[in-house]
Amino acid sequence: MYRSHTCGELRVAHVGSSVTLSGWVQRIRNLGAMTFIDLRDRYGITQVVIDESCPSPVKEMVKELGREYVIQISGEVVERASKNSKLPTGDIEVRANMIKVLNASDIPPFTIEDDTDGGDELRMKFRYLDLRRNPVKNALLLRHRMAQEVRKYLDMQGFIEVETPFLIKSTPEGARDFVVPSRIHPGEFYALPQSPQTFKQLLMVAGFDKYFQIVKCFRDEDLRADRQPEFTQIDCEMSFVERDDVLNTFEGLIKHLFANVKGINFTEPFQRMPYSLAMEKYGSDKPDLRFGMEFVELSSIVKGKGFKVFDDAEYVGAICANGCAGYTRKQLDELTEFVKRPQVGASGLVYIRFADDGIKSTVDKFYSPDDLMAIANAMGAKQGDLILILAGPKKKTLSALCELRLEMGNRLGLRSKEVFVPLWVVDFPLLEWDDEAQRFFAMHHPFTSPNPEDIHLFKTDPGRIRANAYDLVINGVEIGGGSIRIFDRELQQAMFDALGFTKEEAEKQFGFLLNAFRYGAPPHGGIAFGFDRLCSLFGGSDSIRDYIAFPKNNAGRDVMIDSPSTISQQQLDELSIQIKKNN
Amino acid sequence: MYRSHTCGELRVAHVGSSVTLSGWVQRIRNLGAMTFIDLRDRYGITQVVIDESCPSPVKEMVKELGREYVIQISGEVVERASKNSKLPTGDIEVRANMIKVLNASDIPPFTIEDDTDGGDELRMKFRYLDLRRNPVKNALLLRHRMAQEVRKYLDMQGFIEVETPFLIKSTPEGARDFVVPSRIHPGEFYALPQSPQTFKQLLMVAGFDKYFQIVKCFRDEDLRADRQPEFTQIDCEMSFVERDDVLNTFEGLIKHLFANVKGINFTEPFQRMPYSLAMEKYGSDKPDLRFGMEFVELSSIVKGKGFKVFDDAEYVGAICANGCAGYTRKQLDELTEFVKRPQVGASGLVYIRFADDGIKSTVDKFYSPDDLMAIANAMGAKQGDLILILAGPKKKTLSALCELRLEMGNRLGLRSKEVFVPLWVVDFPLLEWDDEAQRFFAMHHPFTSPNPEDIHLFKTDPGRIRANAYDLVINGVEIGGGSIRIFDRELQQAMFDALGFTKEEAEKQFGFLLNAFRYGAPPHGGIAFGFDRLCSLFGGSDSIRDYIAFPKNNAGRDVMIDSPSTISQQQLDELSIQIKKNN
Repeated sequence: MYRSHTCGELRVAHVGSSVTLSGWVQRIRNLGAMTFIDLRDRYGITQVVIDESCPSPVKEMVKELGREYVIQISGEVVERASKNSKLPTGDIEVRANMIKVLNASDIPPFTIEDDTDGGDELRMKFRYLDLRRNPVKNALLLRHRMAQEVRKYLDMQGFIEVETPFLIKSTPEGARDFVVPSRIHPGEFYALPQSPQTFKQLLMVAGFDKYFQIVKCFRDEDLRADRQPEFTQIDCEMSFVERDDVLNTFEGLIKHLFANVKGINFTEPFQRMPYSLAMEKYGSDKPDLRFGMEFVELSSIVKGKGFKVFDDAEYVGAICANGCAGYTRKQLDELTEFVKRPQVGASGLVYIRFADDGIKSTVDKFYSPDDLMAIANAMGAKQGDLILILAGPKKKTLSALCELRLEMGNRLGLRSKEVFVPLWVVDFPLLEWDDEAQRFFAMHHPFTSPNPEDIHLFKTDPGRIRANAYDLVINGVEIGGGSIRIFDRELQQAMFDALGFTKEEAEKQFGFLLNAFRYGAPPHGGIAFGFDRLCSLFGGSDSIRDYIAFPKNNAGRDVMIDSPSTISQQQLDELSIQIKKNN
Repeated sequence: MYRSHTCGELRVAHVGSSVTLSGWVQRIRNLGAMTFIDLRDRYGITQVVIDESCPSPVKEMVKELGREYVIQISGEVVERASKNSKLPTGDIEVRANMIKVLNASDIPPFTIEDDTDGGDELRMKFRYLDLRRNPVKNALLLRHRMAQEVRKYLDMQGFIEVETPFLIKSTPEGARDFVVPSRIHPGEFYALPQSPQTFKQLLMVAGFDKYFQIVKCFRDEDLRADRQPEFTQIDCEMSFVERDDVLNTFEGLIKHLFANVKGINFTEPFQRMPYSLAMEKYGSDKPDLRFGMEFVELSSIVKGKGFKVFDDAEYVGAICANGCAGYTRKQLDELTEFVKRPQVGASGLVYIRFADDGIKSTVDKFYSPDDLMAIANAMGAKQGDLILILAGPKKKTLSALCELRLEMGNRLGLRSKEVFVPLWVVDFPLLEWDDEAQRFFAMHHPFTSPNPEDIHLFKTDPGRIRANAYDLVINGVEIGGGSIRIFDRELQQAMFDALGFTKEEAEKQFGFLLNAFRYGAPPHGGIAFGFDRLCSLFGGSDSIRDYIAFPKNNAGRDVMIDSPSTISQQQLDELSIQIKKNN
C-alpha cells in the first residue's frame, strides 16, 4: 500500500500520528516560508504543509510539483492553527517529512474544479479527467449506491438476478436493433437486446417466479439530446401476480431507495391515475404532480358568445396561475411567444387577470364581467390569479397547455428538485394507430395483456382496448413502465392479428415464445425502470449523461476512444461482409 | 396474488389453515378413492390430496390435469398420515376444495425430473423447460447468491461498481472482437469488449481508487467445449496498491464467498507459488493441490546406465503413486495407453513397483536393485508404492506428466469436489515468444508491469522478464488472474517496443490510454475472475453451461431462439454493408 490513510480520513484524534498519504495535487499555495498542498483522492482533501522545519529534500521537491501530480507524502498529523470547518479533515494538516512524485502530470486541458472551465466536448474527450471532478464523481457514487440498494431490496423480496444473453436475435418490431455479424455462420447476425423482454418471460415459463436484472440494453435510434445508444434498465418480472401485486412490490422498491439513498420516507401510498384522466387534467401521460394547476375544460362555458376562435375550437382549456394577476405586459407577451413556439404549437393565448381592480381579459369584447367571473369560478380562481386559456384541436391543445403549465410551474418555483411526487399512471391504451403505416402498433409491446373486460373490443374497436399496463412517473419524468403479460396463446394470437402480423411473421419473430406458451406458462407481469434516468432524478439533474461513466455524444460517438471507427479488411473478410459504397 | 403461500412454505404449524397455492403439476397419482398431486413451484413441492370428501367439480377437474399444467388450488392444510421426511413440506398436505387450470400444457419433450431423459440438444432447444429441473434451477440460484455476496463484500471494502460501455473500439491485439456496424457512421464499427481492461485503468486515472463490475465480455473465438462467446467476469481494479494488497483483498473475497455460500471457512492464508516452481513440480501453471504427487526430476540419477531413452532425454521425471504397487498388468497397460494418447503425447511409460517382494521395473535390464532403490529414495517412495517415469523433451514431458498425475489423482479418488484447495500462482513470465509470428506476445496483456528488478532485461533478454502478475487457481482450475499495471508512459513504450508495435500502431490502438497516462496516473493493479467458472466450481460441476441461463452451443448458436440468423435487406442497406458471397 502506498498509504496508511486516505485523504478523507484524518481527524483531530490522529494528531501526533505518523501517516503516509497518496493522491493528486489539487492546489499548491506558496507563502514563502510555508507551502500548502491540497492533496486529493476519492475520499477527500487533506492539507499538507511544508515549512522551515521540514527536511531540505522535501523543501526542494515541493518546488517541482504541479497540479494533478500524483504524489506520496509521509509526515506527522498536526492540529491546524486556523481550522477549515467546510472540510471534514479541516481540523488537521500533515507536516511532510517525505514527498515522492509517483507520476508527473501535464497541465490538464481544463481545471479539475467543481465549476470547470472545460466545455462539453473537451470534457468528454478527456472524460477520465472530468471524472475527477466532484459533481461527476459524486453522480457515479450515487449510481453505485442506488444499484446496491436495488439489489438488496429485490434480493430480500426473493427476486433472483439472472443474466440474459446479449447476442440474441433481431426482431423488426419496435426500434432498430444493433446487429453483430457472425463469423462462424457467414451471412447471419446476432442482435443486441433492446430489452430482455422475451427472456424474462421465458424465465417465468421456466418457473423462476421472481426475476430481476440491472442490465444494459441497446437501441439504434436517431439520437436526440440525452438519448444514449446503450442504456441501463432495472428489469423485473413476477409470476402469479395481478397488477396491484406488481405496483405494491415496486412501490416498495422506490420507497426503499428514497429512504436509504435520499433519507426521504414516503408514508402514504403513491397516487394512481388512469391515463385518460392524466391526459384530461395535465395533457400528458407523465404529469408533474409537484404542483396542481390542473386543466379545466371551458368549452361549454365560453362557446356561443361570438368569439370565433373559441366557437370553432374542438377544445378550450385553461389553467389558473395563482398570484400572477400582476404579470406585466412584457411577461404576458413572453408567455404568448412561448405557446406560439413550434415545439408548443398553440396559435395564441387568451388570458384573464383577476386583479384587485376587477376582472379583465384580452377578450373583453366578447365576454362581459359576469361571463369572466363565471369562468373564474369554474377555474376556482380567486383575486390575484391569472387564467391562461388555449383553444384548438383537442390533442394538440392539451399538449400545448401541458407545456404552458410546466412553464408556469418553473416561473413560480413550483418544481423544486428537492421535492419528489411519484405517481402510477394506469390503464394505458393497448394499441396506437399509426396513420403512416396504416396499422396499429402496440403502445407498450406486443405481449401486454388487455384489460380483461375490454377483450371483446378486439373484434369491434381495438383502439379502445385498455391495457393492463402502468408507468411510474416521478416529477413528470417516466421512471419505469410495465404490464401484466399475455400468457395465453389464443390471446397472443389475437394481439398479433390486431397488429397485422401474419402467422408466419409472428412465428418467425416470436415463435420460441409462442412455443414456450404451450408448456404451462403462468400468469405473469413485470416492469422495467430506466436506471440512468432514475439516478439522475435522485441526483437532481436533468441530464443522464453525468450519471454514465463513459457516455456517447449525440452522434453516438465516444470521442474519448474515437469509436465507432474503421476495422481492417481482414476483419471484414473474416466476417464475410463488405462496406457498401454510397451511390 | 394467485396464492397465499408458495409450494415450499407449509409446515405442521399451518395445519387447519385455508390456503391457496399455484404451481405446476409435477406428478399425479390416482389411487381410485384418492388422487394425489405433487404441486411444484420454485420454492418446493406440496402434496395436494383429492378424496371422496372433496367437492364434485374438484373431483371432475382433477381428471383433466396433466403433467406441467399450471393450476391454482385452494383447500385446508391437513397433517399427513404417512409423512415424507425427504420433503420440507412432507409433514402436511392440502385437501383441495377448489382447482382451477390457469394454463394447460402439451406433453413436454422430456421429463421435468432431476434425471431427465432429454438429450443435450433437446434440453437446449427447450431451455425454458430444462430450467424447471432442480439441478439447473439450483445452479442459477447459486449464481444469484454468489453475485450478491461478491457485491456485498466489495461494497463493504469500498469498491464502486461502475458500468463501462459495451459499444467500444476494436483492438486487433488478443482474441477476435465481435463488431457492430454503425448506421449513423457508414463504414465504421463499434466492437464489443473482450474485457473492460482499458476502461478500468482509465477509472484509476480518474481517481476512482477501487472499482469493480460483474460484467459480460465477448470473444469471437473458435469455440471449444465449454467456451462461450459471451461470458461474465468479476472485474476489479485498485489504486495505490502493490501485489500483496491485491492478493490479500481478493483472497478476502474468495474466503467470504466460501464462508457465506458454502459454509467453508479458510483460516489459513492461501498458498503462493512462483510460476517456475508450479511448472517444475506439477507441469502446469494451474496445479491441482488437492493432492501431492509432485514431480521429481530423475535425470542426474538415471542417466549413464546405458538406457538410451533416458540418456538421450532432455528431461526425466516421475511421480510416486502411493499404494499402487499392486496395479495389475491391465491397469499398467491402461496407463501406458493413456500417456501415449495424442492429447498427452508421451512416447512411453516406465514404472517401478516397490512391492512387498522387492523392487522391480520395466527397465531391470539397465538398473540394478540398488539403482532402483536410489530412485525410490529420491521419490520418497515406500513399500507398496508405484513410481511412474516419463522422459523426453522437457516442456512436452512436464505437460504429459501433469496429465498422468491428474489421471492418477482421479483413479485414487484424490480430487473430491467437496474439497477446495486455493493457490496463488505468481511471477509469470511477462512475454511469450511466438515462433509462427516471430515476435513476443504479452502473456497476460500489454499493460502488465514487469517485476521491477527484471526491467533491465528488456534490452538483453525480454523472454526472461518476470511479470508482476498472478492467477488464482482452485483445484487445478484457473479462477482469476491479474497484474500490477504499468502506469508510466516510458515503461509502457518499452513494452510496446518489445511486442513489436510501431509507435503508430500503439497510438492508434491505445492512444487514449497512453494520453491518459500523461495526466497523473496512479500506481494501480487489479484482477478479473471468470464468474461462470467460479459458479460451476462452487456448484461442483465441470461444465459452466449449467450455470448460464441461456447458453450457446459449441457452434456459438442459441438453438432456442435460433440465433444468429439472417436479417432483412433493409437492415443491411441502412447499415451500409452487404454480405460477401463465398467464392
